[in-house]
Amino acid sequence: MSFEFLIRVYYEDTDAGGVVYHSNYLNFYERARTEYLRSLGFEQDALLEQNIAFVVRHCEMDFLKPAKFNQLLRVETKISVLKRAGLTFEQTIFCEAGNLLNCASVKVVCVALEQMKPTAIPPHILKEFKSVS
Amino acid sequence: MSFEFLIRVYYEDTDAGGVVYHSNYLNFYERARTEYLRSLGFEQDALLEQNIAFVVRHCEMDFLKPAKFNQLLRVETKISVLKRAGLTFEQTIFCEAGNLLNCASVKVVCVALEQMKPTAIPPHILKEFKSVS
Amino acid sequence: MSFEFLIRVYYEDTDAGGVVYHSNYLNFYERARTEYLRSLGFEQDALLEQNIAFVVRHCEMDFLKPAKFNQLLRVETKISVLKRAGLTFEQTIFCEAGNLLNCASVKVVCVALEQMKPTAIPPHILKEFKSVS
Amino acid sequence: MSFEFLIRVYYEDTDAGGVVYHSNYLNFYERARTEYLRSLGFEQDALLEQNIAFVVRHCEMDFLKPAKFNQLLRVETKISVLKRAGLTFEQTIFCEAGNLLNCASVKVVCVALEQMKPTAIPPHILKEFKSVS
Repeated sequence: MSFEFLIRVYYEDTDAGGVVYHSNYLNFYERARTEYLRSLGFEQDALLEQNIAFVVRHCEMDFLKPAKFNQLLRVETKISVLKRAGLTFEQTIFCEAGNLLNCASVKVVCVALEQMKPTAIPPHILKEFKSVS
Repeated sequence: MSFEFLIRVYYEDTDAGGVVYHSNYLNFYERARTEYLRSLGFEQDALLEQNIAFVVRHCEMDFLKPAKFNQLLRVETKISVLKRAGLTFEQTIFCEAGNLLNCASVKVVCVALEQMKPTAIPPHILKEFKSVS
Repeated sequence: MSFEFLIRVYYEDTDAGGVVYHSNYLNFYERARTEYLRSLGFEQDALLEQNIAFVVRHCEMDFLKPAKFNQLLRVETKISVLKRAGLTFEQTIFCEAGNLLNCASVKVVCVALEQMKPTAIPPHILKEFKSVS
Repeated sequence: MSFEFLIRVYYEDTDAGGVVYHSNYLNFYERARTEYLRSLGFEQDALLEQNIAFVVRHCEMDFLKPAKFNQLLRVETKISVLKRAGLTFEQTIFCEAGNLLNCASVKVVCVALEQMKPTAIPPHILKEFKSVS
């Protein structure tokens, strides 16, 4: 099962090469993960108040074709690996014409903020992740 | 007449103070102006191909209350001054509770890109701007 | 008296128009203010630990000429107004050829972070500000 | 042989978690590669005028420890693979105390901008890359 989220490319996302600046794809992917969590019922500001955050530990990204100014991008997100204290997302970006522009694998860990240490994903969140992975 | 656009605050928009980083309000305002133009029928990538861009010449911004992580912001945009080669937008940002967080005045000029010189706003665009100002 | 700080324009600072994206000048100005404070002996992470931050309350900016990719910019910063709980900086950006590209007036207030309320600038900092304004 | 470059963490680089936002490490790495090229005698704005750019094709990043606001980071960059039309950089970020915070592998290709196609690295640049790899 995969979650879809649309992102418009604005001037702020581009660089002098006329295309999306390479690090901004990571921002797009995080927006999509945030909306995925929201669609499952979890708001990250509420998680922060409970001293919990999902922190990126590793990522890999392939830049296949550049996304351009003013394009409407479709980000697809799915969970590929689910463990007790972390998970891995596979994410892809397509332009409106349907071409695959970028793909990434992003590993996040659940962290108890006060200690900045990995901790088990809370059971009610883990349950939802299991239902979609 | 005023144009409304919703913007979600993501981690990328915040800073270590826990609120939206001050320069990012200018990004939010530009997204809203871009969507305003789109709602009037003008796509900025098409304008670029016609060698035309709207460039910010002057801005003023008041930071009244900070926008926070994960808030859904409402940006209101209207044209306050319309001239032959430029215009001024009055823009405001509200949180979901309805509090005014930020307001700005942004003066843009129409520029012929090859010469990087101010030029008259194309008549079909000027006509639409007149109809909403 | 004015403080000088050099900033290199990287790809991340530019947009598809081939020049520095307009909101990024505010980032440049804040880097320069941070280095100005450092030159006076104040580290902002230490101030944060003392529950103190300088927060932007109002800004005005004039975009005279665009800064370009790979240029080395000189930012000049001076204090124009100094009050009990806040101050105003006049800041300008020049390219290597000496052309004035951008100028700004930035009003900041001293804030007690826990209450998020304006507070008097600590006396040892106020004293240094007085010595340079 | 490895190239060293220092980067200061400003407010703009951090997020509400109080540390450097994850995508900004890619910006830091690109600044370091740009300065590495400059140290070898190549200015990227001059390369752009010759219709040549180095474009990121793949990256991998490990987030070991978070970089914090106001830290002075040391970025180390070296070339690990050098081919006819591209190269791979190994890059690492250390804090002042000497702790390894982040490491990345970034594969770039040399692109002829008009056709947006991979092209051979110009011989005088390839020669310099060979001398340091």
